[in-house]
Amino acid sequence: MKVERGLFFVVSSLFFLFVLNFTSIALEQNKFDVIKLSKPELKAGKLLMQALQDRKSSRDFSSKELSDTILSNLLWAGFGINRKDGKHTAPTAVNAQNIAIYVANKNGVYRYDSEKLLLSPFLKKDIRKEIGYQDFLHVAPIVLIYVADLSSMARINKDERMFYSAANTGYVSQNIYLYCASENLATVAVGWVKRDAVSKLLKLDKKQKVMLIQPVGYPVKH
Amino acid sequence: MKVERGLFFVVSSLFFLFVLNFTSIALEQNKFDVIKLSKPELKAGKLLMQALQDRKSSRDFSSKELSDTILSNLLWAGFGINRKDGKHTAPTAVNAQNIAIYVANKNGVYRYDSEKLLLSPFLKKDIRKEIGYQDFLHVAPIVLIYVADLSSMARINKDERMFYSAANTGYVSQNIYLYCASENLATVAVGWVKRDAVSKLLKLDKKQKVMLIQPVGYPVKH
Repeated sequence: MKVERGLFFVVSSLFFLFVLNFTSIALEQNKFDVIKLSKPELKAGKLLMQALQDRKSSRDFSSKELSDTILSNLLWAGFGINRKDGKHTAPTAVNAQNIAIYVANKNGVYRYDSEKLLLSPFLKKDIRKEIGYQDFLHVAPIVLIYVADLSSMARINKDERMFYSAANTGYVSQNIYLYCASENLATVAVGWVKRDAVSKLLKLDKKQKVMLIQPVGYPVKH
Repeated sequence: MKVERGLFFVVSSLFFLFVLNFTSIALEQNKFDVIKLSKPELKAGKLLMQALQDRKSSRDFSSKELSDTILSNLLWAGFGINRKDGKHTAPTAVNAQNIAIYVANKNGVYRYDSEKLLLSPFLKKDIRKEIGYQDFLHVAPIVLIYVADLSSMARINKDERMFYSAANTGYVSQNIYLYCASENLATVAVGWVKRDAVSKLLKLDKKQKVMLIQPVGYPVKH
């Protein structure tokens, strides 16, 4: 019996290790795991005035992936924390801090966590073909999806919540534009969005509103 | 008769010159004339990432005037023309280019002309005490007033025009925030605005909507 138990233990351990190994390979192949982001590089890129000079909308994307460093800087520029009190690079009406950034790529959808400096896996599905109407949305390596949470605006008149949330989104989106100008990346803010489809895919509740989407990538070399 | 006519001509000419002189002195004293703006200084200020690091809302203004150079750079940063095709430093939905910037100071209200690089006199009245509720609005040397023209958004669903105009305003306002961060100026976007009063003062029509206001000035030294 002791030999049998020992054998059982060895066999089941080997099986466990085999499964574990298989799973980790599968995870790695799909790369759908937490992405740790680095701190922003404050000494990189262009002068603000030069970035403003180079600011433009572009729809000609290459599918080349962004590095984790570029992705980290980009998201911090958009709505990262820039002060010890937790405030952000973009203002929000009544300090609602109510704009969430989701990042859709070929592996799935992640949610930007500006406090922990990471991208949390949210939905393991490439949704880029389902959220809009334009082909460039599934050429660019990432599409940012801005979602406003109206529940954090209790102090504001109901009718005005969408107004202020739209303005808040503009603040964040302009930061993304300027970072792209600074790093010679292509980007364009898109309002022509399948909002209902995105809400279903991201399982948003009624108070979470899809505002705009914004693909980011390297420009096609002409 | 000839002598009388000659005398009349001389006297009336002197009177005309006197009035002209008096008027020009009066204009100079009130300084309510076209303000020519300079081209933007693209090599001044901070790196974009540093400006993002320093971006914040501040309500503590000194009344110290901004120089014409700072004013020129500020307005260009906000919604200046950065390309030969007339496009701007901030994007607008359906390229409506529908955000006008009015500048209110102690002398009156001017309208920013991004094409001609000047501030056109619009209303000879200090309206800063009449447009909002907060004292700092009449301490800061200038208050920017963002007005959206919904008539240029014919392609967009009526309900969505305010949504997109709010986003468009956010894009412009964030540029102002970042320029202020770059030059260590104080600023805060304000949504708590007496919109009807502003509309009347600026004689806006029904399709021109007052979006946000944004005072800009030097910070009080503590």
